Formats: sequence, structure tokens, C-alpha cells
Amino acid sequence: MKALIISADNFEDSELLVPYYRLKEEGLQVDIASVKRGQIKGKHGYEVEANKALKEINPDDYGILILPGGRAPETIRKEKEAVEIAGDFFRKNKPVSAICHGPQTLITAGLLKGKHATCYKSVAQEMKDAGAFYEDKEVVVDGNLVTSRQPSDLPAFLRETIKIIKRQGKEVKRG
Amino acid sequence: MKALIISADNFEDSELLVPYYRLKEEGLQVDIASVKRGQIKGKHGYEVEANKALKEINPDDYGILILPGGRAPETIRKEKEAVEIAGDFFRKNKPVSAICHGPQTLITAGLLKGKHATCYKSVAQEMKDAGAFYEDKEVVVDGNLVTSRQPSDLPAFLRETIKIIKRQGKEVKRG
Repeated sequence: MKALIISADNFEDSELLVPYYRLKEEGLQVDIASVKRGQIKGKHGYEVEANKALKEINPDDYGILILPGGRAPETIRKEKEAVEIAGDFFRKNKPVSAICHGPQTLITAGLLKGKHATCYKSVAQEMKDAGAFYEDKEVVVDGNLVTSRQPSDLPAFLRETIKIIKRQGKEVKRG
Repeated sequence: MKALIISADNFEDSELLVPYYRLKEEGLQVDIASVKRGQIKGKHGYEVEANKALKEINPDDYGILILPGGRAPETIRKEKEAVEIAGDFFRKNKPVSAICHGPQTLITAGLLKGKHATCYKSVAQEMKDAGAFYEDKEVVVDGNLVTSRQPSDLPAFLRETIKIIKRQGKEVKRG
């Protein structure tokens, strides 16, 4: 399975790096897509290579979508391709994991209506306004959607994300 | 099983945070020990709470020792208690995982003679001088000792570290 992380400058460094390394530990190939190819820089100064531009992405190539937080989602939610990619994952019931401000892209895409989810506290109101059942918990799982609030939730966020990846792997083998 | 991370100011942020969150994901309680209790600050500005001072540590309380890199090991290797804790882990053949500059504390403690290990490239010469069989690989496992070179090795470093934790867990259950 291949994983897709969508982010941009001013990502929350740990919310991108911790899932990135964790998915690689699990043996997944991980692509990072942004507005254009090239280095993107986190709030704490870490630089990572976006090896794909959003417009190059075919969502069918990926088994899971990861949306880290920070100020990057402010940029990403304005990108038509990002919104379309997220919509494609939801339509096909494929795993999506979003943390902190990451769910903002899902809000813009209109995908959270009737979903149980969480996010950074300052995003809670717009999540509720988008029709989600917001819960103030370290991780909320609704089907194949995993959401968390902040960096300190990363252990729970990744525990649930990896559980879904392993389940998908088994379904693929059975299929 | 409880895990002990020993570090200090100017730690390499991802080399502390990624293992910290990964061990918590695995359900371990993780203590962070430093010269004294209180906030320590990474090279990229992340602050974490050292909830223990080195002199409070009883190594018998912990099943695994993690030594992240950055400039923190320059401080840590000068602390008698840190050197003694590392020595205690080795004498009892308990798991130790060290990355980047982290192995410097093991070098000072004289624990690497005849061991296969790796480290950050600028540390390689002193590792060889300490009698280790240095290997330029993403991860080197020698018994219960796991070493890696740099942040990009974190997936392999943690894959091997978690493998050892799971093996220990089974041995404890069998015992």
C-alpha cells in the first residue's frame, strides 16, 4: 500500500514527521504532495521534500491519505485538487487520517456532515458548523476516518491509523 | 514495560519525539530523564518535560533505554549517573537503542568494545577507537543493542527497537 501526505509550508513538524516515519516503519511507500514539488518548511524549521505536486496525483495510486496540521491546511484547503483528492478517498471509503488543523481540508470539501470527528480546539466550531459530531477526545474513529486534536495525541492517532492499514491489508489479501 | 529516554537541551527533536510517541503508541509508559527535572529544549525549539532527574533513576524500573542524538549527548556523557545507568542496562543485557550522537554516552561508558554498531558519521571515528565494529547502515542490531545514524533512519531504528520490545514482552510472559 502507498500512502499520500498532503501538506504545505508551515506544517506542524511533528504531525508530518511522526506519521511519515511511522508509515515507513510499517513498510509503506510514502509520497508527500504539495501545491508544487520541492521543499516545504515546517513551523519549527524542518524541511521535507514534496516529491509530488497536487495536480500530478491520481488518488487511485494510494491506499491512505494523511492530513497533518499546522498552518499548512489554510493553504491546502484552497487548492481544488486537494479538495477533489479528499472527496475521492471518501467516495471510495478509503482510509483518511487527519490531525489538528488537518481536518480543515475535509471541512472545505464538505465531507464531515454526519461524521464523528475531532480537531484542534480552535477548529472545533467550524467542524460543528460543517455538520460533524465533534468530540473532544485524543482520537475519534468513524469507519475509515481517523481524527485527532494535537501532537500529544499522535500515539493514539497512529495506533488507530495502523490498525486500519493492517485491516485493509488483510482485505486486499482476501479480495 | 517502562521506557527511559535520557536527553538534555539541544536534543535532535525528531530523534526524541518520534521514539517517544512510538513507544507510547505501543502502550509503554515513557519517562524522560535529564540532568535535572524540567523542560528541555530541542535544536528546533520543541520543549519536552524531563519528568525525572538522572540521580532519581533506578534502572531496574525500566525495560529499555533510548538515547536520542543532537548535541544533548555532549552534556549527558559527562554525567556520572547516565554512564552508570547505561552500564547497568548492558550488564543485565537489557535493550538499549541509540541514534546519531546518542551512542556517545555508550562510548564514554566503555560499552561498545567488540559490539557491532553505527552512529552519526562525525562520531564514527570515536566509535571505532572505542573498539566497536562500526557499520555505515541505517540500523545495526547486536543482541539487544540497536543503533542508527540519523533521523532518516528512524523507521528502521524503530522497527528493530519494537521487535526487541515485543520479544522481551514474550520472554517476560514465559518467565
